[in-house]
Amino acid sequence: MSFSWPVRVYWEDTDAGGIVFYANYLKFFERARTEWLRALGVEQHALKEESQGMFIVSETQLKYLAPARLDDLLQVSARLVEKGRASLVVAQEAYKMPSDQSNAKSPCGPLLCEGRIRIGWVNTHTFKPSRIPQTILEKFE
Amino acid sequence: MSFSWPVRVYWEDTDAGGIVFYANYLKFFERARTEWLRALGVEQHALKEESQGMFIVSETQLKYLAPARLDDLLQVSARLVEKGRASLVVAQEAYKMPSDQSNAKSPCGPLLCEGRIRIGWVNTHTFKPSRIPQTILEKFE
Amino acid sequence: MSFSWPVRVYWEDTDAGGIVFYANYLKFFERARTEWLRALGVEQHALKEESQGMFIVSETQLKYLAPARLDDLLQVSARLVEKGRASLVVAQEAYKMPSDQSNAKSPCGPLLCEGRIRIGWVNTHTFKPSRIPQTILEKFE
Amino acid sequence: MSFSWPVRVYWEDTDAGGIVFYANYLKFFERARTEWLRALGVEQHALKEESQGMFIVSETQLKYLAPARLDDLLQVSARLVEKGRASLVVAQEAYKMPSDQSNAKSPCGPLLCEGRIRIGWVNTHTFKPSRIPQTILEKFE
Repeated sequence: MSFSWPVRVYWEDTDAGGIVFYANYLKFFERARTEWLRALGVEQHALKEESQGMFIVSETQLKYLAPARLDDLLQVSARLVEKGRASLVVAQEAYKMPSDQSNAKSPCGPLLCEGRIRIGWVNTHTFKPSRIPQTILEKFE
Repeated sequence: MSFSWPVRVYWEDTDAGGIVFYANYLKFFERARTEWLRALGVEQHALKEESQGMFIVSETQLKYLAPARLDDLLQVSARLVEKGRASLVVAQEAYKMPSDQSNAKSPCGPLLCEGRIRIGWVNTHTFKPSRIPQTILEKFE
Repeated sequence: MSFSWPVRVYWEDTDAGGIVFYANYLKFFERARTEWLRALGVEQHALKEESQGMFIVSETQLKYLAPARLDDLLQVSARLVEKGRASLVVAQEAYKMPSDQSNAKSPCGPLLCEGRIRIGWVNTHTFKPSRIPQTILEKFE
Repeated sequence: MSFSWPVRVYWEDTDAGGIVFYANYLKFFERARTEWLRALGVEQHALKEESQGMFIVSETQLKYLAPARLDDLLQVSARLVEKGRASLVVAQEAYKMPSDQSNAKSPCGPLLCEGRIRIGWVNTHTFKPSRIPQTILEKFE
């Protein structure tokens, strides 16, 4: 099960090094996870209101391999690699897309960042970990 | 001359009030301005490298009328309202888009935020204001 | 009634122009307002829990006069300029502090950004405007 | 060699879950690393201008153990755990500080987040990894 989502680099994403600020890849990864969940039928805001439960990030591991710059277009993937009762692990990658002039034979540019994100299910009020609702787990089958 | 760009609200955009953090509308407005410039043929990163000039924001005026929440889909507009030799003023608005279940007769939800952004042209090294290159000004005609 | 709070510029605050990203002055201004309120005895998180009310920003007007860079130390002021029943207007300024080597005769460097922020009091659930609690208004006398 | 730096939680740091947005711990950790480097005599902006070199983050590993909320005061540590020729690994922790009413016998509240950050030295223009200047490495002895 893999999923991919485009992310454009704006001024807000960059830092004085002239490149994307590394912490922002966590935002890019989350946008891709959110759209992946949405594509599976999981609407987080509605769930939060209805089930009093939500996913929270409990672990992140990222490697930064090459920089991205203003106006670059990235493609961010999300793929489930571990499915537990109370948490999921999602493997994610951000690639730089070739600019429009580029050779169509290379569909993807260099890998910029890769990582693993563990998300756990908690009660929205107490933040206590609990079992992921079965209706959600079934979406990943 | 008007332009519109969709913006989805993610966790990164919200604050503990449960709504979009007000400062983030400046980011949403800039994404729309950037895409509007791109649609007109103005690529900011390339310009920065080639012309040693860039747009910077010199004034912002925003009014916040209604809150946006996680998973909301916004439509952000950009419209040129003043064209000077060294600066431009862009009027911008963010509307909440109706959810998919909504009546197709109402194409747009409530106005959430409106504002005016003045952008000036400066040298990338000295930050001194200078005339906007004619090739850029012509794009707005 | 005036108040001042120091803000250091980190990588997170800058953009690819090599300077502080303009939207971040709204964050700097809010840190100063929050510490000003705290100094007056107004703890926002406690209020939110107890009174079911909170301040939200309803209008912002900012002018950007000079850029700040990585490692710069700013001094951010907050001063009440309008006190209504349902909203307050706070005038704010960000100055660059001279580096340690500088002449002690100039206590303050150039003005970088100035603005006015209107904050209104709303119910935390409905976001409807309401009167600022008298116990809070008294703090500003 | 250990170092600690206070970080206050503002609205900008929180998300709609009512807690600090997890990506922001990377910002808090960087503020502590920056102040730790400054305390050792390493000024990053000056170095960037003079040496044409800078530290960039090449790997991050974080675990989120407990949430922080608006107005919380955190204490963030930085400790060198690996010193190579081209990169350093810094272990970091964020603790919640007890509120003023708390028992003075417990100097530190619960551990909220812990992680390891690898920073490498690169050329500011090419982003190619290179040896950390000896004058900087000596600061860590």
